Order: sequence, then structure tokens, then C-alpha cells
Amino acid sequence: MTVSRDHFPDCECLGSATRFAEDVHAVIDHAPLFDELSFQEIEALFSFMVCYAGHRHTVLLREGERGDFLIVLLTGRAMLSRLNPAGGNELLGEVRPGSALGEISMLDGTGRGATCIASEPVDFAVLDRQALDAILLTKPHLGSRFLLRMLQMFAAQVRTSREPGGASVFSALI
Amino acid sequence: MTVSRDHFPDCECLGSATRFAEDVHAVIDHAPLFDELSFQEIEALFSFMVCYAGHRHTVLLREGERGDFLIVLLTGRAMLSRLNPAGGNELLGEVRPGSALGEISMLDGTGRGATCIASEPVDFAVLDRQALDAILLTKPHLGSRFLLRMLQMFAAQVRTSREPGGASVFSALI
Repeated sequence: MTVSRDHFPDCECLGSATRFAEDVHAVIDHAPLFDELSFQEIEALFSFMVCYAGHRHTVLLREGERGDFLIVLLTGRAMLSRLNPAGGNELLGEVRPGSALGEISMLDGTGRGATCIASEPVDFAVLDRQALDAILLTKPHLGSRFLLRMLQMFAAQVRTSREPGGASVFSALI
Repeated sequence: MTVSRDHFPDCECLGSATRFAEDVHAVIDHAPLFDELSFQEIEALFSFMVCYAGHRHTVLLREGERGDFLIVLLTGRAMLSRLNPAGGNELLGEVRPGSALGEISMLDGTGRGATCIASEPVDFAVLDRQALDAILLTKPHLGSRFLLRMLQMFAAQVRTSREPGGASVFSALI
């Protein structure tokens, strides 16, 4: 399988994400999507991902734009925001290394629910739908563990959204 | 693998759900969790499930109660409700054959988000966490297709909950 390296033409491509698995493992407490995986499993997963380096102000995800990939922030910080009904820009929160963003659009092909912009120089890894399908085909055990973890995170999100005021809770699920 | 037959001691156990795959296939338009699977795949999935027959007023799921299984309504109707903050009983909607309920608790072991009571005699199939793990182990391709479909449904739910007023939208995700 060839992993696409074309998702961020304006960023420097750092190649396969395998050697960046250590970065995620180092911040595993802030990486809920990966915190139940061993280092070897993270490494295997990251071998299907590509890394990029972006400068400050790089738009990592843009609200409304379709995208079949998720990103994992490896180093640096980013800000998450979305347009509110009044037309203003509502700040949702800061994204830290270890966070994954963009799962929903990767899964259903719909537009991003928020905009994510690097507030510092960042390194980030990209997993697209084609790579996810390749993981499920070639490493089904790892793939289903990853899907199950994603499901648990979505479940928590759905549950939170049912609570009073829950719909506005900050969410990494874009 | 032995599929547990103890989830509904007060209901008549109809045995393996394999022969009920046809019931789901017949209402596939109302069975979003299965509508992308072939009849053979539904049959394979249902071989890991057990069927029960319940009388009218059977409590299929009870709000707040933990449960590691989902149910699929095969025949009959059921009503979904939950307690509102004022202590009253809020009707969420009617559950029809083909609907799946209880995915979230199956995945994260937390309490049910609503109560589901049969309003007619019902037949229903049960998939518990142990059976899901067995599917993922022995039929990884089918298992990951099923997980992906569940993820897409959760994604739609998370997305809806972000829209104004969306948190109160009827959801089959309990």
C-alpha cells in the first residue's frame, strides 16, 4: 500500500510516521485514542500514517471542508474554533500533542465541524481512510482495537451531548 | 464460543439468532446498523446472537442499568422513554423492527441512557460484548465492517448533537 503524501502540499512532508510513534507514546496520557495500545501497536499504526511539519498559522482542518483523514498532533499547539450563528468566531479550545482530530469526516466524508489552526510550529501525523482500510485488511486485530477505542470515545461524546448543556462541551471529534 | 442465554431470564429463549437473520433482512430499510451488510453477512453476525420472545410490557432496557449488550428488535414494537429533570417520564419515540438499541453501554459498560419497554409482544436478538469480541477474533473482516457502521452512526449522532437543539433529537443510541 502506498500512503498518500498529498494531503498538505504546503507543509514539509517528513515521511512515514513510524519514527514518530515515540512522540505519541511520550504524551500517552493526553492521547486517549492511543492510550490502550502498546508502543509496538502505536508503531504499527503509525507505519500507515505520514508526518508533516507546519509553520505557525497553518490551517490543519477547515470548518465545512470535506476530508477523508484524521490528524494527530505530535508537537506544538493549535487552536480549535468554529463559526457561531451570529457569524463570529467561537474559540473551542487548545489542541495539545497527542490529540486526534477529524475522525468523523474520515468516517463519513462530511465537512469538518470546526477549524484547527496551528498556534506554534507543529508536527502532525495524518491517517486517511484508505490507510485505515489497509490497516483493517492487513492487521485486523490492531484495526478493530483502534475502531473500538474510537467507538468508546464517540460513545462518551454522545452520552455527554445528552446531558443538559452538553451539546456545547468541547470535543475533539471533528 | 458459547453465547450467553442468560440476559433475559424472564423471557422465552428462542435459541441462536441465525434463523432470524431473514427478519432483519426483510426490514433492512429500517435497520441502519445492518443495511450495508449482505444477507450472508447478517446471517454470520446473527449466529453470534441469541433470540428471546418477550410479552407486552417486558422491560428490554432500563435507564441507568448497566448492560454489556445491545438488542435488535425483530418483531413487535417498543417505546423508548427517559426521566426528565422534573422527575417525569419523557417519551422519546417508538422503536420498530430492525432498530438496534444499547450500543453505547455494550461498548463502555456505563448505564443505559433510556428505558425501552415492549408495547406489543416482541422477538428480539441480543449481542453481548463477549460475542462482539468473538466476532472480531474469528471474523475480523465482518467485525470491522460492523464496527465501522456503528462508528458512522455515532458520528452522525455526534454531528447532530452539535446543531442547535440537537441534543434532544431522538436517538437509538442508548
